[in-house]
Amino acid sequence: MVDGVILNGPITDSKAGEKFVEEACKIIMEEIIQKADDVTEKVCEWRAPETLKKLLDLEMRDTGESHQKLLQLCQDVIQYSVKTNHPRFFNQLYAGIDYYSLVARFITEALNPSVYTYEVSPVFLLVEEAVIKKMIEFIGWEEGDGIFNPGGSVSNMYAMNLARYKFCPEIKEKGLSGLPRLVLFTSEECHYSMKKAASFLGIGTENVYFVKTDERGKMIPEELEKQVQRARKEGSAPFLVCATAGTTVLGAFDPLDKIADICEKYDLWLHVDVNSVAWNPHKMLLAGIQCCALLVKDNSGLLKKCYSAKAAYLFQQDKFYDVSYDTGDKSIQCSRRPDAFKFWLMWKALGTTGLEERVNRALALARYLVEEIKKREGFQLLLEPEYANVCFWYIPPSLRKMEDGPEFWQKLHQVAPVVKERMMKKGSMMLGYQPNQGKVNFFRQVVISPQVSREDMDFLLDEIELLAKDL
Amino acid sequence: MVDGVILNGPITDSKAGEKFVEEACKIIMEEIIQKADDVTEKVCEWRAPETLKKLLDLEMRDTGESHQKLLQLCQDVIQYSVKTNHPRFFNQLYAGIDYYSLVARFITEALNPSVYTYEVSPVFLLVEEAVIKKMIEFIGWEEGDGIFNPGGSVSNMYAMNLARYKFCPEIKEKGLSGLPRLVLFTSEECHYSMKKAASFLGIGTENVYFVKTDERGKMIPEELEKQVQRARKEGSAPFLVCATAGTTVLGAFDPLDKIADICEKYDLWLHVDVNSVAWNPHKMLLAGIQCCALLVKDNSGLLKKCYSAKAAYLFQQDKFYDVSYDTGDKSIQCSRRPDAFKFWLMWKALGTTGLEERVNRALALARYLVEEIKKREGFQLLLEPEYANVCFWYIPPSLRKMEDGPEFWQKLHQVAPVVKERMMKKGSMMLGYQPNQGKVNFFRQVVISPQVSREDMDFLLDEIELLAKDL
Repeated sequence: MVDGVILNGPITDSKAGEKFVEEACKIIMEEIIQKADDVTEKVCEWRAPETLKKLLDLEMRDTGESHQKLLQLCQDVIQYSVKTNHPRFFNQLYAGIDYYSLVARFITEALNPSVYTYEVSPVFLLVEEAVIKKMIEFIGWEEGDGIFNPGGSVSNMYAMNLARYKFCPEIKEKGLSGLPRLVLFTSEECHYSMKKAASFLGIGTENVYFVKTDERGKMIPEELEKQVQRARKEGSAPFLVCATAGTTVLGAFDPLDKIADICEKYDLWLHVDVNSVAWNPHKMLLAGIQCCALLVKDNSGLLKKCYSAKAAYLFQQDKFYDVSYDTGDKSIQCSRRPDAFKFWLMWKALGTTGLEERVNRALALARYLVEEIKKREGFQLLLEPEYANVCFWYIPPSLRKMEDGPEFWQKLHQVAPVVKERMMKKGSMMLGYQPNQGKVNFFRQVVISPQVSREDMDFLLDEIELLAKDL
Repeated sequence: MVDGVILNGPITDSKAGEKFVEEACKIIMEEIIQKADDVTEKVCEWRAPETLKKLLDLEMRDTGESHQKLLQLCQDVIQYSVKTNHPRFFNQLYAGIDYYSLVARFITEALNPSVYTYEVSPVFLLVEEAVIKKMIEFIGWEEGDGIFNPGGSVSNMYAMNLARYKFCPEIKEKGLSGLPRLVLFTSEECHYSMKKAASFLGIGTENVYFVKTDERGKMIPEELEKQVQRARKEGSAPFLVCATAGTTVLGAFDPLDKIADICEKYDLWLHVDVNSVAWNPHKMLLAGIQCCALLVKDNSGLLKKCYSAKAAYLFQQDKFYDVSYDTGDKSIQCSRRPDAFKFWLMWKALGTTGLEERVNRALALARYLVEEIKKREGFQLLLEPEYANVCFWYIPPSLRKMEDGPEFWQKLHQVAPVVKERMMKKGSMMLGYQPNQGKVNFFRQVVISPQVSREDMDFLLDEIELLAKDL
């Protein structure tokens, strides 16, 4: 005993702990995994925040709860959580369940690794290396480098910082003070992480120049060139173009070839294709939140030069193995999760062909949905989609005879929020809506999961009709 | 059929998938969870990178593998991974296994939530709110705000950016160009994330002024004041002090009260105590990688003002519920994992008392180890620890009669890497070493896990003696 604490043997009852894990796993299997493909289950059991707070016993107390109480809490958590695996969860850019990725995630949670040095994460570092190599091959680059990050937004930040470092390596030590104003370009349809990144990195949101898009949401190359010239005239320092291959709302692909020509002409880094790519396998490939890689064409060690801090306590140079495998210093993180592993196991399980099938099916279902929308009265496409994003309005019966004008659009703007409220409270499905570039609220359906089918597409349209029939 | 793709029914065989998950869970239970407290198992099955690449079938192919082959791959991954749960894994600042946290992690992996809006993550957002509130109470603040981040390094970046925003809100839009040089202060024993953050945020590593520490590794307040005055004389803009409560190597606590006085005098943000705190429950509290909160004393919405980008497709303002629960815009991430949940379930299970017991036991074990080190020939403490970090040299028999001088220290410097290589290859334990501030390589033992006992401390010392007896 030291200071009244008994030091012999463990304080944890591991047998009881193991039994608790087993019982909880049974609940997880029955209540989440086995119900994932069951359309008779609700997508969500909606409760308003204040009501849900009362239903859940959220308070943390001085003394612990019994296993029985804890298992009940787990049941409650599951019951009131949104079933993002459900075939009718269409609310975000991820959905569905992949059993292989899920197993990989259970393994990493149980092993609890952190990916920075080979000595601590031998398998996961090699897996990350193999996956990044394969992704680079897939993009079509001859060589490259990369790293898995906690989210695509963070990958975009990495790219922005890399481009800046390439533009002026001294910024790492000296910072931006005293330098000309750095300017980057992206389309007005870009992801909001561009603004977050510019702000976080000290560049400033006003130095993100938004380039006009055409009626399909694609960046207009001529407009880009004008903006670059404007920035030069202002005496600022253009350094980066962030293109988008699949915009968040409309699913538009910027014209990469033409943009690449402009980048070459003005010596700008092109993020999302020529110089770097952010790729999130947790979206259409179902690898599970989060699984996001930043890939960089440069293979001269730019990533490491830009990010390294050389912590002596972690990256000792007198280790007995080849320390080039200690890749943690390429990251802004210290502890880092082995997100490449779930993608790897899934890829092993399905093969490239199986992954391709998933994407093909999603795209085919999106096309099916488009054709159905065209056939049905009251549904109106925003535009003919080029990808899996299907954006449309539903015009309820009372508005169909109305004249086109401000009043019509104002009323239509209010339809989607009401339909959304009704579907949430009913729990039948979840589908997102938003306004965009002067267009009033419309629905956005992105087909992601291979567990969905033609029947789910039909249901989606039927259900909107049903929920909005009195509007 | 559309474009040759069948759209009726699912393409995934969910029954086969569920069976695969069940079989894999059995392996996880038997090979990881049940072995976690078994000291007769190896901590690692060491293989050099090139050998391990050959042992593992890393390649991703066009066609998928059978379930049988995949289960074997899972076995291999587990076999060659480091067992960070093992009672003799002392290599990092995390260790052990907590069964409740593990269950929470399995639940979130199966539910696959992303924490940004209440509609998608009702339970997990409320849980995060409750946990942050409780952590703020625990620190002793009357109010505050906070967010869970992917790692303590990222939390430190958040704090640095918040301090900068508070200093000059315009930086969010305008960036740092044209502004005076921002300077921050931290001790020379700080975590390396300080440099990473300064570089990433565009401040520059040279604008991190490292303050001298005393012989125990604590920041010297008088030196801090000198540095602040120096920065002012240079015409730069001091804005932040990052103190450390438990340094990475020595476990030193900076004198927070005195530092706070200086911060008040010069109007500087104090990160790690007065204005903000980064707290990682994945370390001594065993919540699992990653579980990291940034807590901010300000309750005027500073976090949201500083970070928001107001994406219209996600944070619609015409939702039917109270959108103040959509807290995702406080983050630099878009997708975000519900890391608060594992800490919450663990806290519910153990109670505050149970968490306290864990910390007390770790500290008592560290003190026991210190006393044993003092008793044994050849072991030498670097300094009397004030926390759970026990730093010591082992002087092997051949060096014990040597005169103190450069040759002695040079030889001693080489001891730890050899002992480390031997323990890794034997798989008996894992313990870190590093040089620090002119001191040659020494071992650093940090007692973290409640699954370890006096016997493991004795083993640690016996094993070093055994491995180094011929040196």
